[in-house]
Amino acid sequence: MYIVELTEPTNFEHSQRPRPSPGAEEVLVRMNHVGICGSDIHYFQHGRIGEYVVESPLILGHESAGEVVAVGRDVEHLSVGDRVALEPGVPCGECVRCRTGSYNLCPEVVFMATPPDDGAFAEFVAWDADFAYRLPASVSTRAGALCEPLSVGIHATRRGEIGLGDSVLVTGAGPIGMMVLKAARAAGAGDIIVSDVVPSKLARAEKAGATTTVNVAEEDLSDAVAAATDDNGVDIVVEASGAAAAITSTTDVVRRGGTIVCIGLTQDDDIPISMNELVDKELDLRGSFRFKNTYSDAISLLERGAVEVEDIIDFEMPMNDLTAAFERAQEPDVIKGIVTVDSE
Amino acid sequence: MYIVELTEPTNFEHSQRPRPSPGAEEVLVRMNHVGICGSDIHYFQHGRIGEYVVESPLILGHESAGEVVAVGRDVEHLSVGDRVALEPGVPCGECVRCRTGSYNLCPEVVFMATPPDDGAFAEFVAWDADFAYRLPASVSTRAGALCEPLSVGIHATRRGEIGLGDSVLVTGAGPIGMMVLKAARAAGAGDIIVSDVVPSKLARAEKAGATTTVNVAEEDLSDAVAAATDDNGVDIVVEASGAAAAITSTTDVVRRGGTIVCIGLTQDDDIPISMNELVDKELDLRGSFRFKNTYSDAISLLERGAVEVEDIIDFEMPMNDLTAAFERAQEPDVIKGIVTVDSE
Amino acid sequence: MYIVELTEPTNFEHSQRPRPSPGAEEVLVRMNHVGICGSDIHYFQHGRIGEYVVESPLILGHESAGEVVAVGRDVEHLSVGDRVALEPGVPCGECVRCRTGSYNLCPEVVFMATPPDDGAFAEFVAWDADFAYRLPASVSTRAGALCEPLSVGIHATRRGEIGLGDSVLVTGAGPIGMMVLKAARAAGAGDIIVSDVVPSKLARAEKAGATTTVNVAEEDLSDAVAAATDDNGVDIVVEASGAAAAITSTTDVVRRGGTIVCIGLTQDDDIPISMNELVDKELDLRGSFRFKNTYSDAISLLERGAVEVEDIIDFEMPMNDLTAAFERAQEPDVIKGIVTVDSE
Amino acid sequence: MYIVELTEPTNFEHSQRPRPSPGAEEVLVRMNHVGICGSDIHYFQHGRIGEYVVESPLILGHESAGEVVAVGRDVEHLSVGDRVALEPGVPCGECVRCRTGSYNLCPEVVFMATPPDDGAFAEFVAWDADFAYRLPASVSTRAGALCEPLSVGIHATRRGEIGLGDSVLVTGAGPIGMMVLKAARAAGAGDIIVSDVVPSKLARAEKAGATTTVNVAEEDLSDAVAAATDDNGVDIVVEASGAAAAITSTTDVVRRGGTIVCIGLTQDDDIPISMNELVDKELDLRGSFRFKNTYSDAISLLERGAVEVEDIIDFEMPMNDLTAAFERAQEPDVIKGIVTVDSE
Repeated sequence: MYIVELTEPTNFEHSQRPRPSPGAEEVLVRMNHVGICGSDIHYFQHGRIGEYVVESPLILGHESAGEVVAVGRDVEHLSVGDRVALEPGVPCGECVRCRTGSYNLCPEVVFMATPPDDGAFAEFVAWDADFAYRLPASVSTRAGALCEPLSVGIHATRRGEIGLGDSVLVTGAGPIGMMVLKAARAAGAGDIIVSDVVPSKLARAEKAGATTTVNVAEEDLSDAVAAATDDNGVDIVVEASGAAAAITSTTDVVRRGGTIVCIGLTQDDDIPISMNELVDKELDLRGSFRFKNTYSDAISLLERGAVEVEDIIDFEMPMNDLTAAFERAQEPDVIKGIVTVDSE
Repeated sequence: MYIVELTEPTNFEHSQRPRPSPGAEEVLVRMNHVGICGSDIHYFQHGRIGEYVVESPLILGHESAGEVVAVGRDVEHLSVGDRVALEPGVPCGECVRCRTGSYNLCPEVVFMATPPDDGAFAEFVAWDADFAYRLPASVSTRAGALCEPLSVGIHATRRGEIGLGDSVLVTGAGPIGMMVLKAARAAGAGDIIVSDVVPSKLARAEKAGATTTVNVAEEDLSDAVAAATDDNGVDIVVEASGAAAAITSTTDVVRRGGTIVCIGLTQDDDIPISMNELVDKELDLRGSFRFKNTYSDAISLLERGAVEVEDIIDFEMPMNDLTAAFERAQEPDVIKGIVTVDSE
Repeated sequence: MYIVELTEPTNFEHSQRPRPSPGAEEVLVRMNHVGICGSDIHYFQHGRIGEYVVESPLILGHESAGEVVAVGRDVEHLSVGDRVALEPGVPCGECVRCRTGSYNLCPEVVFMATPPDDGAFAEFVAWDADFAYRLPASVSTRAGALCEPLSVGIHATRRGEIGLGDSVLVTGAGPIGMMVLKAARAAGAGDIIVSDVVPSKLARAEKAGATTTVNVAEEDLSDAVAAATDDNGVDIVVEASGAAAAITSTTDVVRRGGTIVCIGLTQDDDIPISMNELVDKELDLRGSFRFKNTYSDAISLLERGAVEVEDIIDFEMPMNDLTAAFERAQEPDVIKGIVTVDSE
Repeated sequence: MYIVELTEPTNFEHSQRPRPSPGAEEVLVRMNHVGICGSDIHYFQHGRIGEYVVESPLILGHESAGEVVAVGRDVEHLSVGDRVALEPGVPCGECVRCRTGSYNLCPEVVFMATPPDDGAFAEFVAWDADFAYRLPASVSTRAGALCEPLSVGIHATRRGEIGLGDSVLVTGAGPIGMMVLKAARAAGAGDIIVSDVVPSKLARAEKAGATTTVNVAEEDLSDAVAAATDDNGVDIVVEASGAAAAITSTTDVVRRGGTIVCIGLTQDDDIPISMNELVDKELDLRGSFRFKNTYSDAISLLERGAVEVEDIIDFEMPMNDLTAAFERAQEPDVIKGIVTVDSE
């Protein structure tokens, strides 16, 4: 089968591997659509993310959906011909993190496109059927691939306990920020302020339901939040920019007793946080890592039309043009690029 | 000022009382719209609800909105001319229930239209300004009056922790069931099944976002829920009918580890509950009493159009026709009647 | 190896089975001590519990501890010679209940002494090493076997969110009630009231930390709770008796906004519950089923001496006297009997 | 009556003020014991804490207990002669923070010894009776005064959701760290590691129930925690030192999915926090501010002997020696000094 692998930074090789056979509890999926994630781009550029180093050729891509073409003998809930979205991480199910309800923190997880586990820029992927979710007729595989970033948004929304009427600030209008915005909107949030430095992204955030947008290249975030909230601050901040200045300002713009959810990974590790503000205002600062138990809910939201995801897509390019697709995905006003997977 | 008071069961008297002056922390509100609630009808018919007995003439009505005509000297956030919805219960702020975040359970609460506290079928009401909420231009006082039942729905949704993608059964499509449906829909619920015995109410529930409706006069509820959920049962049941049979069936139709929220007061007090099912499935059965901290959120939902409430209104009648309005409100296919308040 | 199996109600047969070999992820444990649980007695008497029917010979016993005598090749954290307590239920790790943090509700669980899964009245048991917990030197296997009922108490304490200073009523001073008392005491509860009808059990409860005991054969429970709580009711009730009258009274004796945790399975299925009280007082009525993630904590409590368990033991008898042990365990003032496992 | 007031940094003046009369809902309390808190010392040294500046003479002291000598006309639950501990903060009961269950965050709170509100170094204090708690016969006013720091420990324990078997690291063995240790121990925590730089404090922590102590002047905290937890990290860190290095290390020493509670105010405001660790490990970093709803529980713990507090007291000195007491309280190995209040 046709695959694309990263052999060294900025070098994709197009080659062939044997088509895998699905194990007893797996399905074999012919890939249709795979989104390009910021982490894919980071591996492409640097060959590593922190401790995760690409030491042998690695297939990238973990936002994927396709069609089931073979089914393992113990799989009951899926059939050949079903279109499915693949949840990219399969946890061990046995460790203390799995047993205490946090499978997203399983240290033994197999996660697509994270060395040494291959991802989805491949004609076929064999995957644990419990982590393959049937798409209803009304949900395309193009939207299905985006269940992955939508899951990040849903998980962050849950970490922040965002609910009916809550005011929210989302810092960063990239794909994750946009998905947080959409998930928070679907969860009944009230005012949602979105900040970024790219005007076209802010315009798209406004179209997607932001009640206020702030261009932090031009406007002070604290002032803008104060103006939008009668000086109260927001109930919840979701930090999706990874920018140090944004993170540091979160304790200022959130209300007393409020919650800050951090998703974005940062360039510099140590970010200055006002502990006095954290204590005095009795804030909660919560990390949000990937997701758990989100795929069915993401699909349900898409099926009912409660969330639209395809509006974040800027372009669609075929897998045999992967380098070009990765280059275009790095342009500042691009939110999401989608790769279509065909035989070569 | 013109008021209507209940002097004995089924007897309203139209009379005059002196116009109240607002206290330092109060506003004086000229009433515009007041909804008729099931509890108002119960007092009208029986002169009592359980231990609450109408012993002297009582003004009914607690779903109200109007216009501020005078402001106490310590009130800062409201002005003459503001249109406001009134939260009908003012808690003491000092008891252990208030101090532990459950002001809806305050035993010292002053609650409109609950003996001996008067309600809102009156030209003017003086009310604690902290419990008067300004309506934005896009929200009418007609809708504002319905912040009260919507609050019941929001509170039940929070008690059930209904969130993104959850499947829900709402038993009963009266005003409370409808408001639960709307609040759950706004909170991102997935499938919502609504049951009742009146076809016209089920049709309105479907229009308001129910994905499945069940006429329990014709169909078995357990069978219908099993069919709609692949035999899994729903994540959350909200019991809004007060019917013994519905309550007893809740432990059967909810999934393992699921939650049942009960709002409806029942005719007979002791309802048979399968404790073995409750234990084996490790269910949560939660009472939901009135509401707390909901009004701002209700108004926010109305302002954004995330919830529509006026579709539950069947008729609007003037206060000088109050007996007729109460009679009409008891017809089986009526969900909500609204009273307009004018000078006589 | 020597085992005892239940062939039909009230008939134990002492026989031999081949000694099992541990799988790659299992340990082989030579049993030392096995407690007799109420469910064992129920199977012994009736050959069934609800839908679980003993259709072929079944080894009873699921409160067990012993010594590791062999270790599967993938087991790293245990060695031959370790003394271990066995958690009797091994969940699938893959279903939606497991993935959402409720492995105690896994429908695929293998649970000792629940048809068709054998239990621990056997010389040797091969068991998933992840569910075998090393006992420190200061904890005997006699105490280790009682990690099982202690786990039930810990889980109920968590379901009730019992914490510092909370007032608690425990109905029933059998083994489960006693373990709830001990877990609640260890969790910092304030006043703990224990009710039962057997004076000797109440005396033992008092010795174990109950601040008030109530003999409900002689005293009205509601009156006694009112007297002990200045008419406020308790913060949390843990219902461990399974008696219908006790269950029905829980909504009366708990405070407004309080929590009732039900553990006891009942003879009659449908128990009358005051739904009006549940709603008016906004109560939480929660089932508590077995336990999850408790064994390490139970052992930690035993190691530090924060909980004593051996005081609930009335007698110890050898496995070759199992029928006599089961008969004695049914005497009304017996709380717990322990079986010692030797070769025949 | 005799009072001591701070007129400028390091200057106490001993003088007389008129004895206050209790309001209708107040009690008048003759002070017996008042603890010296770190914040008192900070005001004594610097005349300010952050934005709170001593602009006119201020009576310090907010850890207090005494005897009721007069009772306002609406006070029912207290009588002359009752010994009481005073909760030092009286919230407004009306703001959004009070109404949502966080009265400790009330911006309108009257808090003893926080400018401009006077504290307890006075012969008599008139105080809201709802915030005066009767001490049972077995609890002295000397212990009663320490309900205040114990409340800080209880609140932090609740913020950290510390429960049965949890492993805990407490950084700092000053009065707050010691009280966290005691509250966590009472809540059933398992291993509790305490760190500090003063050997005598660590020795006292060990006596009070710490299972491991770490002198961070000599030993690396991360290494010590790793050694004590099989490289897993602790479930919960409670940061009670306010030292930047300790705060920064918390994300390293806590386990995946663990919780960090910060109480200590810091010299420098911006503390470097590893956001990547916070996200990757999906940590919760929670501020803990003062306390709410703790006094009854603190007294319950003292009454049952579940917590001992007087072991943290180093010395007791009379109020007419207040400057000397404040000097002694600053010695590095002192944990707590108590002031006895007499007429001059």
